[in-house]
Amino acid sequence: MATVDRWLLPDGIEEVLPPEAARIETARRRVLDLFQRWGYELVITPHVEFLESLLTGSGQDLDLRTFKVIDPLSGRQMGLRADITPQVARVDAHTLRREGPSRLCYAGSVLHAKPQALSTSRSPIQLGAELYGDASASSDIEVISLMLEMLELADVPNVHMDLGHVGIYRGLAKAAGLSGDAEQRLFDALQRKAMDEIAGLTAVLEPGLASMLRALARLCGGREALDDARTALAGAPGDVQTALETLVAIADQLAARYPDVPLYFDLGELRGYHYHTGVVFAVFVPGVGQSIAQGGRYDDIGADFGRARPATGFSTDLKSLVSLGNADLTAPESGIWAPHSDEPGLWGAIRELRRQGERVVQALDGQSQADAAQFGCDRQLLLSNDVWTVASLAS
Amino acid sequence: MATVDRWLLPDGIEEVLPPEAARIETARRRVLDLFQRWGYELVITPHVEFLESLLTGSGQDLDLRTFKVIDPLSGRQMGLRADITPQVARVDAHTLRREGPSRLCYAGSVLHAKPQALSTSRSPIQLGAELYGDASASSDIEVISLMLEMLELADVPNVHMDLGHVGIYRGLAKAAGLSGDAEQRLFDALQRKAMDEIAGLTAVLEPGLASMLRALARLCGGREALDDARTALAGAPGDVQTALETLVAIADQLAARYPDVPLYFDLGELRGYHYHTGVVFAVFVPGVGQSIAQGGRYDDIGADFGRARPATGFSTDLKSLVSLGNADLTAPESGIWAPHSDEPGLWGAIRELRRQGERVVQALDGQSQADAAQFGCDRQLLLSNDVWTVASLAS
Repeated sequence: MATVDRWLLPDGIEEVLPPEAARIETARRRVLDLFQRWGYELVITPHVEFLESLLTGSGQDLDLRTFKVIDPLSGRQMGLRADITPQVARVDAHTLRREGPSRLCYAGSVLHAKPQALSTSRSPIQLGAELYGDASASSDIEVISLMLEMLELADVPNVHMDLGHVGIYRGLAKAAGLSGDAEQRLFDALQRKAMDEIAGLTAVLEPGLASMLRALARLCGGREALDDARTALAGAPGDVQTALETLVAIADQLAARYPDVPLYFDLGELRGYHYHTGVVFAVFVPGVGQSIAQGGRYDDIGADFGRARPATGFSTDLKSLVSLGNADLTAPESGIWAPHSDEPGLWGAIRELRRQGERVVQALDGQSQADAAQFGCDRQLLLSNDVWTVASLAS
Repeated sequence: MATVDRWLLPDGIEEVLPPEAARIETARRRVLDLFQRWGYELVITPHVEFLESLLTGSGQDLDLRTFKVIDPLSGRQMGLRADITPQVARVDAHTLRREGPSRLCYAGSVLHAKPQALSTSRSPIQLGAELYGDASASSDIEVISLMLEMLELADVPNVHMDLGHVGIYRGLAKAAGLSGDAEQRLFDALQRKAMDEIAGLTAVLEPGLASMLRALARLCGGREALDDARTALAGAPGDVQTALETLVAIADQLAARYPDVPLYFDLGELRGYHYHTGVVFAVFVPGVGQSIAQGGRYDDIGADFGRARPATGFSTDLKSLVSLGNADLTAPESGIWAPHSDEPGLWGAIRELRRQGERVVQALDGQSQADAAQFGCDRQLLLSNDVWTVASLAS
């Protein structure tokens, strides 16, 4: 490897330099403080775990995205976390074991062996919040509201949200007796809105259910799509109707709280279908192909850790949030330039200023006042009548 | 894998739960703010890199501690960072390419394939600061001072510091014509203070140098060890004398700044010898076998990235810092309990309180005021004369 190549980073693996790193740190603090104000408690989960723990309750997607290493101490296979959500579910189900609702949040790097889409990062900083122990729509509304507040705090303009509910397709497929391969093929066709394929796959089913399954591909758009769905699914089984009404309740509450955020519905597009069990949602901005924040309900995940708990939550990538948002994250440039000197009182003066919260950069050998601005200093420390005094740089 | 085992974490890999995670976050912010006040700029380096980049300039120790994975995109070997210092050196030497001194700092998780000592963590959160571009003792004094301020901020009691300078042994060994295996064997014997072995290995060398090399094993203790060294090494080559005088200058300045921190010297014990080029230092507390913060000068590391730059810095583990320190990191428990209600004004009242910085936890279905304390709330939101009002929990 030539010297010139040695500093190249792998595709999709980024480093963040000053001053951008400081902006990301500021955003991180603001978002975690927001989560805290909503009652969400921070957890710090490890970057590696045994693979079985890491992939429990998740789909094959996550497996493919997860780097694997052998633990030299145990000889067992470990994975580098590609998603923090299953880790936090494990913490809730098995480590904390609280009765009643539990609100948790997290912030940390994850690694993806393969990028989720062309040109996306393989090293996002995942931020998220999860609410466990409550199966009601109130919890879904709370986490979606918190996600929208986070986007507002980052000042991401022109967001719109897609909402769906995996219980609708799941209930219809179950009633139609679909399972395994057949359910999966119809699911795939629905994601692609491949109408002919959907017609073929549903042709053998009971005509009422077949018609409702075919309708899912068309049930998308604004709030009117939910009214259309009520009509189209009027004859659906009870659990399907309940899922639809939950989605309507969530949508109406969000529309009241955030009238400026356009809501779109798609009853056939089911992100995270294998993982989620209820409402699913994703936020988009114009010009960005991937969702910038997303989540949903996933009530069954804790069961694999010995304790089934209702769960709902969302996550985002901090780096995208900062690059897409307009929030002013830059600290005002302020600093005091101290000379390179052994004068006995200088160290005490510098120390006191730093204790007062001032930023003080001390000159090294060969540096002079002319270097001050380059180090972000707008003032200087001068010896004036035997007292170290803060003065303007022009002095 | 039985359900009961699925949540076990690998040895040395920890998760941090509430409220400890919040304490660690508070300490992280305070330390990064301290670094900022000293003029150190944050960089965020990636968790994985190509192995050649990651291990450049470092020794075999780091190689053994580094987990390796194959990058599916490039087919090349990558390593999970076990130390952030070489990454930051790469950023300084190759990405930033600044003229003149550069102060950088970082905070992030690292992973060790093997623990550095029995019962130590394999997943520390490494925090550190590095000063590039200045070869003078002023820089060493600055970074060591910053390290001590960090320990003071964390209120770690009873710290003492070990100081040494690898230039002393290196200069003597070079003058004696030792290299390769012979130098390494004598180095190993010195670390163990194996006097007989040292005597044997130096028997064939020029008598004056042999006697000075043997003396290194005894040159340890308080400040008087440096005076003894001046006598014992009076006939040493110029570079050895310069190294000793640099160590004396650094020690005397630190003693003046931090009279309460006992300093110990050991001219034969050379932590990070293969990596460091000048002063080396480590801070210890009673009852803890490992150093809790450590660093030194490593002027040559940038050369492998095409640009040799003087460099000095230190690092610590944030989790150890928090567990050993007495600093009060717990936020006062404060919060407002909001009822589970659809009353139209409630959402606006909660939102306004959160915007004012209050922590507000809203009850979910089935929860009542009796649950408020469990969620850290000391007040509640009540509807009083049609206005949502903050009241004591007893109301």
